[in-house]
Amino acid sequence: MTVLSERIEAGSLRANYDGQVVRLLGWVQRRRDHGGVIFVDLRDRSGLVQVVFNPEIPNFTTAERLRSEFVVSILGRVRLRPEGATNPNLPTGEIEVVAEELEILNAAKTPAFYIQDDVDVDETVRLKYRYLDLRRPEMQKVFKTRSKVSQIMRNFFDSRGFYEIETPMLTKSTPEGARDYLVPSRVHPGEFYALPQSPQIFKQLLMVSGMEKYFQIVRCFRDEDLRADRQPEFTQLDVEMSFVEVEDILPMMEELIAGIFTEFTGKDIPRPFVRLTYKEAMERFGSDKPDMRFGMEFVDVAEVVANSNFKVFTDTLAKGGRVKGICAKGCAGMPRRELDGLVEYVHQFGAKGLAYIVLGEEGVKSPIAKFFTEEQLQELISLMRGETGDILFFIADKESVVAEALGHFRLELGKRLDLIPEGALNFLWVTEFPLLEWDEEQKRFVAIHHPFTAPMDEDLDVLKTEPGKARAKAYDVVLNGIELGGGSIRIHKRDVQEQMFELLGFTPENARAQFGFLMDAFEYGTPPHGGIALGLDRLIMLLTGKDTIRDVIAFPKTQSAADLMSHAPSPVADKQLKELHIKTNIPDLKTK
Amino acid sequence: MTVLSERIEAGSLRANYDGQVVRLLGWVQRRRDHGGVIFVDLRDRSGLVQVVFNPEIPNFTTAERLRSEFVVSILGRVRLRPEGATNPNLPTGEIEVVAEELEILNAAKTPAFYIQDDVDVDETVRLKYRYLDLRRPEMQKVFKTRSKVSQIMRNFFDSRGFYEIETPMLTKSTPEGARDYLVPSRVHPGEFYALPQSPQIFKQLLMVSGMEKYFQIVRCFRDEDLRADRQPEFTQLDVEMSFVEVEDILPMMEELIAGIFTEFTGKDIPRPFVRLTYKEAMERFGSDKPDMRFGMEFVDVAEVVANSNFKVFTDTLAKGGRVKGICAKGCAGMPRRELDGLVEYVHQFGAKGLAYIVLGEEGVKSPIAKFFTEEQLQELISLMRGETGDILFFIADKESVVAEALGHFRLELGKRLDLIPEGALNFLWVTEFPLLEWDEEQKRFVAIHHPFTAPMDEDLDVLKTEPGKARAKAYDVVLNGIELGGGSIRIHKRDVQEQMFELLGFTPENARAQFGFLMDAFEYGTPPHGGIALGLDRLIMLLTGKDTIRDVIAFPKTQSAADLMSHAPSPVADKQLKELHIKTNIPDLKTK
Repeated sequence: MTVLSERIEAGSLRANYDGQVVRLLGWVQRRRDHGGVIFVDLRDRSGLVQVVFNPEIPNFTTAERLRSEFVVSILGRVRLRPEGATNPNLPTGEIEVVAEELEILNAAKTPAFYIQDDVDVDETVRLKYRYLDLRRPEMQKVFKTRSKVSQIMRNFFDSRGFYEIETPMLTKSTPEGARDYLVPSRVHPGEFYALPQSPQIFKQLLMVSGMEKYFQIVRCFRDEDLRADRQPEFTQLDVEMSFVEVEDILPMMEELIAGIFTEFTGKDIPRPFVRLTYKEAMERFGSDKPDMRFGMEFVDVAEVVANSNFKVFTDTLAKGGRVKGICAKGCAGMPRRELDGLVEYVHQFGAKGLAYIVLGEEGVKSPIAKFFTEEQLQELISLMRGETGDILFFIADKESVVAEALGHFRLELGKRLDLIPEGALNFLWVTEFPLLEWDEEQKRFVAIHHPFTAPMDEDLDVLKTEPGKARAKAYDVVLNGIELGGGSIRIHKRDVQEQMFELLGFTPENARAQFGFLMDAFEYGTPPHGGIALGLDRLIMLLTGKDTIRDVIAFPKTQSAADLMSHAPSPVADKQLKELHIKTNIPDLKTK
Repeated sequence: MTVLSERIEAGSLRANYDGQVVRLLGWVQRRRDHGGVIFVDLRDRSGLVQVVFNPEIPNFTTAERLRSEFVVSILGRVRLRPEGATNPNLPTGEIEVVAEELEILNAAKTPAFYIQDDVDVDETVRLKYRYLDLRRPEMQKVFKTRSKVSQIMRNFFDSRGFYEIETPMLTKSTPEGARDYLVPSRVHPGEFYALPQSPQIFKQLLMVSGMEKYFQIVRCFRDEDLRADRQPEFTQLDVEMSFVEVEDILPMMEELIAGIFTEFTGKDIPRPFVRLTYKEAMERFGSDKPDMRFGMEFVDVAEVVANSNFKVFTDTLAKGGRVKGICAKGCAGMPRRELDGLVEYVHQFGAKGLAYIVLGEEGVKSPIAKFFTEEQLQELISLMRGETGDILFFIADKESVVAEALGHFRLELGKRLDLIPEGALNFLWVTEFPLLEWDEEQKRFVAIHHPFTAPMDEDLDVLKTEPGKARAKAYDVVLNGIELGGGSIRIHKRDVQEQMFELLGFTPENARAQFGFLMDAFEYGTPPHGGIALGLDRLIMLLTGKDTIRDVIAFPKTQSAADLMSHAPSPVADKQLKELHIKTNIPDLKTK
């Protein structure tokens, strides 16, 4: 019998073990000496238990050597703690283990920080000593949860007849999308592989291959600037199905997602999820991932203000812009300084100003009230459901600025006013995204999702005449204002795919060079297909209540894409570069 | 209701569906016209069913357009085939579907090869049109099996309290082991990530992190020359546990492996697996992965031949070499030409010669018989259990040459004599590998498994005096002479790890620069730990009876590490290289 096989998990011990001899394996959380007796809190993955070393045991001197984070093997007898000595805060607090044997398996230096949940140390220190950071109970719980979620996802798809199929990591670089990570080829001088930004093309080829139902939990790579809590490598749940319409995918994914959140939060998740079209989401919340945990929706006030004397509003409308407002409940008492601050706040999103009307106890107070007739004012208040004690805020600008500025303003107010219910989980779908958007820099259309997204059937004609107005069979799933993932029904006909590449400004030669194999594949009997991808890191982050995806990735990179523990990236030997037919090219450093 | 939700899988239809209306979605396998009626074999992932189009249906002209690999949606009524028209070779052969509606979802050009199991086309064509190749029923079955095996593995470990934890793909390059694939960093000019050859260090750090039980099904990368059925990227089941000894890991893995093979082959796999020490495996079979599906073990004949007059044998023994033989049953009739061929065969493995003694009906015939007394000859025959009709073969050389040449000779004879029972599954463990081997080229010891493998406790002293003789706590699992995987108990103490790096010729500075973070980690309370990795591709290859791992990887690379379908690797834009601070360096091409 091995030591491990006779082991009992520390955190599992309860009063019913009283009198039993148990083997414990774990780490010394802390050691206290009290009246000649040594008390050790022993920690393993399952929790903590108190171990008592009496001075008469043979290896008491060994016990005296124990320090925090020593690794030990202990044989001891469980006993009930005497009355008054129990610890109700500890699941094992009714008992303790009286040590009979002790072996130090490994000693430990004093760690850079104490292993506890509310660790008060800079993240760079935590990342450098990630192996210590991961010992903290809350981190252990994150990775247990993450593992379970992956298993739930896999069993979900496996039981529905999906095959998990692995797609290549060494793929071909394509110019659409984000920047690729490249891998030089030793065998083919001057040529490079790219690490996949997603298995998009391969999963579509698996549909061409007749696999019909595919999923994978897969690493993806994007060499982007790492603002906004991104990682150079991240994990997604990737799904694709043949013969599907939007209605096949959304309910299935709802079942999966709601199941996972119910499992880990105990909360009931109503299904079906709310659905908003992109247009509606932008109109009502100024965002394609609205946070609907609270209200304060946009109100379009154009009709009322068009006849006012307020030139800022009327001019904006005359130029085709929008005037929208939100009603901030119970804010009438907001100090002038804070109001001024809010005006500043919207500036950063391009809004030229923020107008407001305070509905105070003593009546309406507003710098812009004078431009409105009393009737117009009452109409405005009524349209926005304003009541005494509220403030009405307005932004007038071109459509995109109103959406962005007022959207951020709404979120900011929601936070300041504490409108977001603790623990709320608000899922929704945003559908009917535009297929394309005009890129001013490149002077061409770019795909909003990707170039393989199918246009809506009813917009096929629009696509020829006004491509920017065509909608896509695309959908995003949003939780609490954060995009969990998205997908689409794909183009499965060669002529439509060719038309798409043309709209995106590809010459036929370019399209052929980059995606010829996919378009060829489409000629050999490709079924209609579609799918979705969910960002696993972000999902786990939301599920475990963490603030950053770095907390749910075992060995994450910093904002500068570095691993502070192992020191990657790092310089390599010249011999390695030579074999790969490359040299470094750092003119900035050379000329210095 | 969507079309998919009302669909029935073609291969699932049986006589009990008689009279029901069903929706079929799939590919036209082939179309035949017979007496004005069109017969189509419709194929989907589940199998084939015959569909009948009568000329009176409204879309008969559409049916006339059908060709192989067209994708169709069909509504039809199941009926029993008339007597005499059933097809006992087809699971659905008792019924057919009389079409009422037909929609062509996509047309197809004539594919490069017909979609059937015994496809007679060059592998390069199959790889170029991989999306057609994968439609073949046997390939569909491979990926269904592969997906199921992954799920079984995951559920096995999940149910035993293992966490699946993802380790980084963008890691640090280390000089030990095979050649790394490198990834230039854009943010850190002149620095590179390496794609992992295995998650070895990270999984050990997860043990330092107190995760206790880890597994992952993970992609690994080796930039090696791709002889011997290797792939630049491959998948392994990776496992690590804390507080373990060899006896914790081997039985657990046996349960997993035997369970999988029993599930898919229906065969009973005896447990525990046979165990051989490395020494014994080399002595008896000349291989650290012996194929024990048949006998013909080596016999050490030194004692008998030492006193003979055959100088080749006696000189070899005097110089410390070995003389071993095997007895080939019933081969006495082997023609002289074949015998000469076998002598040639062993030359390629460095053996200077192959001696033999034919035990014919008319007595012993052998070029070397004259060097032995009758008594010696009889002793030799008896030691090797030779009987009339057999041939005794001998190789005399230094130990390593005898092992390699006679080992290959044994396998070759086993094949020629058809000694390998069809469908046999012979699992075994090889244990107690040497820790180190001397590398003549580098003039230093290299680790046989890797530098983190623990020496056997009883060999700690030997390690100091004769490092080459120390054995490791390492084990390989072998199936039918093919290594499925291997692992070890790891070093978990800093001083032992330092000693190991010293033995491997690292300066302390080098060891620190490459592995400092791991050695640092070992100072903060590292539990004893060990693990194993299984090659998933090879396991699936053996399970599905394929000849190459390319057949069990959805989108494999060729021997020159290229993807013939998507054309990876490929040249990239100069802009991309510039951003990555590298340029190509191809002097051979420049000087031409």
